[in-house]
Amino acid sequence: MKNLSRREMLKMSMVGASALALSAVNANASAVDAKGVKFDEEWDVIVIGSGFAGLAAALTSAKKGNKVLILEKMGRIGGNSVINGGGMSVCANPVQAKTGIKDSKELFIADCMKAGLGINHPELLNAIADRGIDALNFLIENGVQFKEHCAHFGGHTVARSMLTTNDSGSGYIQPMLEKFEALKDSGCELRRRAKFDDFVMEGDRVVGVVIREEYKFDSKLYSDDLENTSGTKKTLKAKKGVVLASGGFSNDKAFRKLQDPRIPDDVDATNHAGATAGALLKAFEIGAYPVQIDWIQFGPWASPDEKGFGTGPILTQQGTFKYGIAVDVRNGKRFMNELADRKTRADAEFKILREAPGKYPITFADTKMAFKDLSEDVIQKGLASGKLVGECANLDEIASKYGVPADALKETVKKYNEGVRAKKDEFGKQESALSEINEAGPFYVIRLSPKPHHTMGGLKINEKAEVISAKTNKAIPGLYAAGEVTGGTHGASRLGTVAITDCIVFGMIAGENI
Amino acid sequence: MKNLSRREMLKMSMVGASALALSAVNANASAVDAKGVKFDEEWDVIVIGSGFAGLAAALTSAKKGNKVLILEKMGRIGGNSVINGGGMSVCANPVQAKTGIKDSKELFIADCMKAGLGINHPELLNAIADRGIDALNFLIENGVQFKEHCAHFGGHTVARSMLTTNDSGSGYIQPMLEKFEALKDSGCELRRRAKFDDFVMEGDRVVGVVIREEYKFDSKLYSDDLENTSGTKKTLKAKKGVVLASGGFSNDKAFRKLQDPRIPDDVDATNHAGATAGALLKAFEIGAYPVQIDWIQFGPWASPDEKGFGTGPILTQQGTFKYGIAVDVRNGKRFMNELADRKTRADAEFKILREAPGKYPITFADTKMAFKDLSEDVIQKGLASGKLVGECANLDEIASKYGVPADALKETVKKYNEGVRAKKDEFGKQESALSEINEAGPFYVIRLSPKPHHTMGGLKINEKAEVISAKTNKAIPGLYAAGEVTGGTHGASRLGTVAITDCIVFGMIAGENI
Repeated sequence: MKNLSRREMLKMSMVGASALALSAVNANASAVDAKGVKFDEEWDVIVIGSGFAGLAAALTSAKKGNKVLILEKMGRIGGNSVINGGGMSVCANPVQAKTGIKDSKELFIADCMKAGLGINHPELLNAIADRGIDALNFLIENGVQFKEHCAHFGGHTVARSMLTTNDSGSGYIQPMLEKFEALKDSGCELRRRAKFDDFVMEGDRVVGVVIREEYKFDSKLYSDDLENTSGTKKTLKAKKGVVLASGGFSNDKAFRKLQDPRIPDDVDATNHAGATAGALLKAFEIGAYPVQIDWIQFGPWASPDEKGFGTGPILTQQGTFKYGIAVDVRNGKRFMNELADRKTRADAEFKILREAPGKYPITFADTKMAFKDLSEDVIQKGLASGKLVGECANLDEIASKYGVPADALKETVKKYNEGVRAKKDEFGKQESALSEINEAGPFYVIRLSPKPHHTMGGLKINEKAEVISAKTNKAIPGLYAAGEVTGGTHGASRLGTVAITDCIVFGMIAGENI
Repeated sequence: MKNLSRREMLKMSMVGASALALSAVNANASAVDAKGVKFDEEWDVIVIGSGFAGLAAALTSAKKGNKVLILEKMGRIGGNSVINGGGMSVCANPVQAKTGIKDSKELFIADCMKAGLGINHPELLNAIADRGIDALNFLIENGVQFKEHCAHFGGHTVARSMLTTNDSGSGYIQPMLEKFEALKDSGCELRRRAKFDDFVMEGDRVVGVVIREEYKFDSKLYSDDLENTSGTKKTLKAKKGVVLASGGFSNDKAFRKLQDPRIPDDVDATNHAGATAGALLKAFEIGAYPVQIDWIQFGPWASPDEKGFGTGPILTQQGTFKYGIAVDVRNGKRFMNELADRKTRADAEFKILREAPGKYPITFADTKMAFKDLSEDVIQKGLASGKLVGECANLDEIASKYGVPADALKETVKKYNEGVRAKKDEFGKQESALSEINEAGPFYVIRLSPKPHHTMGGLKINEKAEVISAKTNKAIPGLYAAGEVTGGTHGASRLGTVAITDCIVFGMIAGENI
């Protein structure tokens, strides 16, 4: 940082909103007063978003006889949920009991609090611990199929994560969607390409929403929420209330950068393209409290050379991070324990990218070892694009292709191997994960960039999934929220497989209370 | 955490807003539409808050011929500024040059970014670095008197902090206040006990404010902002704009706990009682972006046994932390390096208080050594209340008075002394700060509690001190902000003495641009 030129400073200062020249679609919009509004349609309950939380809220609410409309702004259903890995933490669950795993609510909460650096909201953790089994039963009733054993994810004291038989979030979304669409005759509907624009208010009560139908989300825009003018406006009444289940904002270039200016605009998230903050920000305008919005979880195992989550994370986590090393291309040196926790590694990569934008660190291992734990399918998928994985005959080729000082790079590999033999790694990599790199090559090489993965913060809800107002410190009548759009459950850092629990439990609770 | 009872869980879950029963003064309030409003008064510029930022904005704006009104909700002027220590970072300043200290803008920014964990907003740091000298000259012109040398504060690479001759923030506030009050004849005014309640809007433009005069702030209320009904309403026009300089929210029990649920309601901040989030939250309602609002800086050297900043911080930092140890009363063991950075120590204390609410850790040293570096004045002030500092004849008395297992406590002191002799402390306390504790006593003992000290986050402003709107990603016409109510300059953690720079520079910039 000491030798930062003026030009580099300017580059860094892209956070400055004045640098943006967005056309202001909603410039004069603010929550709409119900007085004088002619509603185009009337529903009992309107749910914004069709992921885990939205579908859980809609099904629960519909079961009580409500006419429920789900609005999904994208053409595709399920947002991030459908591309999720499908693990769901349920503490002290029946599958654990069958397989002899001892677990408790207190242990689960302690695990979450440890990961969350102690700033989790206890009453929300309490709720997802108390209702986890109910959520599991709700899912099974709605056709979700689980494996007969629990998986042990990082940060959990015991194996407590239920897995769908297809190892994917789609294993939840698909059956719930079918159940919901079967309610057509009861007056329920799921509408695609329907974008929530604003709330309709009667005093401080949410009584409806303004939407645009036939919306065409445009991932090429800097901010789809602010720039996209597509679609036809409609005003819908929600007689009993609105459930906000619009997800996180990992792909909102403007808002995520305000919270963490280290994220370059050209870095994709692991999320689906529609993960933006529009609906969240509208809730702030009607007085909803913002909670812990700057805690963004990054995947330090991701690559800038593919879109979305991609294949890179598997190739690095189960491959080059384990059987190779990661190197700063500027000096050819290692800069982190390749198997440290996510935050430590993401911070280390960001440090490099802040000092030298675009100088993505690389990770590599010799081809014999690199992907030996992976299935041929995955490897072929990784190699297919020709962009994600570089193949280099030797260290000199890595040096020339990625702009690394060759001598330093060779010295680094030599030093690493010495550490392996001495069973003592300079960055504290676990002894069990140390294996020598064949200095002769050939090598597989992947560039690294931390990708936004999950946004921990959002709206403050209470145990009833009601959204709390800063104007009163009480619930906003008619407004509920669940899932990634809310904040507090995960604190500073979400433990793997707790997101689904959070989404399903609070979606269910919203549906019960509305 | 493992053996948490249901009752303890309930205690912890006080974050749940549903636990609160506040009367909702502003229940139906939201920004007021200027249409049909009859203004009681007209001003060019209205400034909310009379601290560093507010006075700098007011004086700069008044100099341009504007009729400026400053609104201060408290009876006392200067908020946290007047109780501040008075250090102001100015990089590459003339006093440094005279005394041969080499400094640069780049070095200053690098220092701030390191403390801020890299999430500082670069364009804001850039601005305070660029305009630091201007701010210094502005202050000198307005009668502020500085010492002839710079002080070297923790985290800064070089000595670059200017100090007022009276070592206090009042050294800024008093002369600026006098200058401003001298502008009475030019139509400027500072009004005490005048509480900002809301903005008056013309479309998306801020054109005025709703206030209450004769407001009586009540520190006994859980939330003064929501519960206090005192005062008489007035509506004021601000022809050129409004500057929000309302400070941070370290004393806002409801809002600070949403961001960090570890903060108990009964823990005072180091701040003045009026440091609440009311004005900040009103800005969110008109669409202002929230930025990094959950980064709260704590003073781990503070005591629960006195109000506000108090004398404890001096007695611990320059006394018992250096010449003694800190101990967990539950087991009599040390739990931190008493001289680690603020965050590390605050986290360690919070861990204890989360596990065992009310079990404040203690710090102690033998009376001969404890306060040997402090002036008699300070020591007498510390001992005067009889509550802050406990005097114990020996370790057994400490054990019985503070509920510590006596044998474990003795063992801890013995072990610490062994470490001192071996020049190797188990928590890595600096060798230069190691000195043996006289095991025989007598001792001075102080209880510890991390107190909220500074709230890093707030509103997003640009380099012109304009508040940025989430509705447009552009400036909100007519709204400026400066100081602790804004976020981004300090990132995750403010470096000491950078707050005044931030306040004065952006106050000045707001005044220049409005």
